[in-house]
Amino acid sequence: MIPQTTPLFLALDLTGTFAFALNGAFTAIRAARLDIIGVVALGMITAMGGGIIRDILIDSLPPATFSDWRYLAVAAGGSLLAFFLGPRLDRLSGPIIALDAAGLSLFAITGATKALQFGLGPAQAAILGAVTGVGGGTIRDMVTQRVPTVMRSELYAIPALLGATLSVIAVSVGAYGLPAALAAAGTCFALRMVGVRYDLNAPRPRGHRDQDDVSAD
Amino acid sequence: MIPQTTPLFLALDLTGTFAFALNGAFTAIRAARLDIIGVVALGMITAMGGGIIRDILIDSLPPATFSDWRYLAVAAGGSLLAFFLGPRLDRLSGPIIALDAAGLSLFAITGATKALQFGLGPAQAAILGAVTGVGGGTIRDMVTQRVPTVMRSELYAIPALLGATLSVIAVSVGAYGLPAALAAAGTCFALRMVGVRYDLNAPRPRGHRDQDDVSAD
Amino acid sequence: MIPQTTPLFLALDLTGTFAFALNGAFTAIRAARLDIIGVVALGMITAMGGGIIRDILIDSLPPATFSDWRYLAVAAGGSLLAFFLGPRLDRLSGPIIALDAAGLSLFAITGATKALQFGLGPAQAAILGAVTGVGGGTIRDMVTQRVPTVMRSELYAIPALLGATLSVIAVSVGAYGLPAALAAAGTCFALRMVGVRYDLNAPRPRGHRDQDDVSAD
Repeated sequence: MIPQTTPLFLALDLTGTFAFALNGAFTAIRAARLDIIGVVALGMITAMGGGIIRDILIDSLPPATFSDWRYLAVAAGGSLLAFFLGPRLDRLSGPIIALDAAGLSLFAITGATKALQFGLGPAQAAILGAVTGVGGGTIRDMVTQRVPTVMRSELYAIPALLGATLSVIAVSVGAYGLPAALAAAGTCFALRMVGVRYDLNAPRPRGHRDQDDVSAD
Repeated sequence: MIPQTTPLFLALDLTGTFAFALNGAFTAIRAARLDIIGVVALGMITAMGGGIIRDILIDSLPPATFSDWRYLAVAAGGSLLAFFLGPRLDRLSGPIIALDAAGLSLFAITGATKALQFGLGPAQAAILGAVTGVGGGTIRDMVTQRVPTVMRSELYAIPALLGATLSVIAVSVGAYGLPAALAAAGTCFALRMVGVRYDLNAPRPRGHRDQDDVSAD
Repeated sequence: MIPQTTPLFLALDLTGTFAFALNGAFTAIRAARLDIIGVVALGMITAMGGGIIRDILIDSLPPATFSDWRYLAVAAGGSLLAFFLGPRLDRLSGPIIALDAAGLSLFAITGATKALQFGLGPAQAAILGAVTGVGGGTIRDMVTQRVPTVMRSELYAIPALLGATLSVIAVSVGAYGLPAALAAAGTCFALRMVGVRYDLNAPRPRGHRDQDDVSAD
C-alpha cells in the first residue's frame, strides 16, 4: 500500500476537514430550522464529502474518512464546536467564507498530491485536487437547496485549480514539503478571498442578458 | 471473498429494499406529475441508494444491487406495486413515514454488519450503518427538491445510529442473530416513530431565532 | 486488465462526452448568471457524470475520465466551445434537447457494453447502461435545482433502457460492432426525439389528480 499518510498530508487533510466542518455547521445554523443533528450532519457532510469523492475516484477504498478514526473525530468535533459557538457569533458570514476558502485550499493540495501518489498523471491530479476542494461545499449546497458556489459567479474553481497545479509542480520538481504546501494553499486562499472581497467574477458569455432582468426581450 | 450474504443479512437487506421502494414510489405519486417511469425510478433510487453508497464506501464493488438480480427485482417490483396500489390509498402520509422508518431501521443493521465483515472498526461500522439507513431517503429528497429529512427537525439520524450501534455491540459479543437484529431494528423503528408521533426534535442551537420569523432583528 | 477501450467503444464514449459537454454548457448559459467557470463546470459535470457513475459501479477505478486524458480534453473542449458559441445561437432549446438525446443514446450503449466486459449479467448491464445514460443529465439537473428529467414526464429512461438492451442482445449473439451500435443508439435517439416531439408520456397512476390543480379536493 502507498504510504500516503505522511504527517504533512495528514495535518493538511485534517485541518481542511476541521475548516469545512465548522463551515458546514455554521451554514446549517444560519440556514436555520436545523437541530443539533442537522448541524452536525451538514458539518460532517461538508467536511468529509471532498475527501470521500477523492478516495472513490482514485480507488482508495474504504475512504480515509472511514478507515482512520481521526477524520470522523475531527469532523464531528468541529461540527459540535460550531453548534455551541455559533449563536454567540454575531455575523457569521465572514468566518463562513474564510473557513470555506481554507477548506478549499487545503483539500486542493491534498487531493492533488494523493492523486499523484496513486499514479494519476499531472493534469488529472490537478483537476482531482480542484474536485476535492470544491466537492464538500458542492454537496453542502445541493443538500441545502442552493445552486453550488462553483456554479455561481465568484472565483471558486480557479483558485482551487491553481493551488492544486502548484502542488503538482512542486511534487514533480521534488520541492514538495511544508513550505511548498503552505505556499500553494496560501495562493489559493488569497486568490479566493480577493475574489470575494472585490467581487471579481470570471468572464461571462458575451452578449448574454441576465435572466434576472424580467424585462421583455 | 467474504460470505456476507448470509440468509439473515439477505432477508433484512431485501426487506429494507422493498420498504424503501414502496416509500420512494409513494413519494413520487404524492409529489405528482410523475409518470410510471418517474415513480419506478424514484422507487428504485430510494431503494438502492443506501446500499450502493454502503458498498462503494466499503469497496464491495460492483454493489450487491448490480451483482445480485434479487435486489433489482425487489426494487422494481416494489415500485411497480406502489404504482398500481398508490392511487387507491386515500391518505398516504402514514404508510410513507412507516415504510421510510422500516427501510431506515433495516439498512442501519445491514450497513453496520456488512461494514464489520469488511474489516471496518466498530465506530466506523456504526456510522456507516447510519449512512446506509439515511442514504436512500437523502437521495430521494435531493432528487425531488426537498431539504433531506436528515437535515430537518425530526429524529432521524439518531435512531439509525442507535440501531447500528446495537448491531455492532451484538456482533462484538457474539450475540448477533435474528433476535438481536430484530431487536436493534425494532428499537430504531420505535424511536423513529415515537419521534414522528410526538414531534420530538433534537436540541437546537441556543439563542437562535428561527429565520421563518421574518420580524426585524 | 480488460481491454475495454476498443476504438469503437472509445469513439462512442468520447462522442457522448462531447454531446453532453455541449448540452451541459448550453444549459448553464440558458440558466444564466453563470460565468465561464460555471459554464465549463456544468459542461464537464454533465459530460463526465454518467461515465464516472458507471465506472464506480463496475469497479473500474480510477474512472476512465481521470485515467485517460482524452475524456478531460473532450469534456473541457466541448464546454469551452459552447461558451463561445452559445450566445450567438438564438434559440438553444432545440440543440440542447438533441444533444442530451445524443449523449443519452451513446452512453446507454457504452454503459451496457462496458458492464458486460466487466462480467455483469445481461439484465444488470442493460440497467447500468440506462443509468450511465441518464446519470450525467440527472446530476446536471440536481446541481441547477431542477427536478431531474428522468423524474419528469417525457420518455427518457425507456429509450435509454431500450438502447442498452439492444446492445446487450447484439453482444450476446456476437453481432456487436459499429452497425449494431449505431442501430441501438439510433433507436434510443429516435424514440427520445419522437417522445419530445409529440409530448408522449409514460402512463400515470390511475385516478391521480395533478397536484398543480390547487382546486379543493
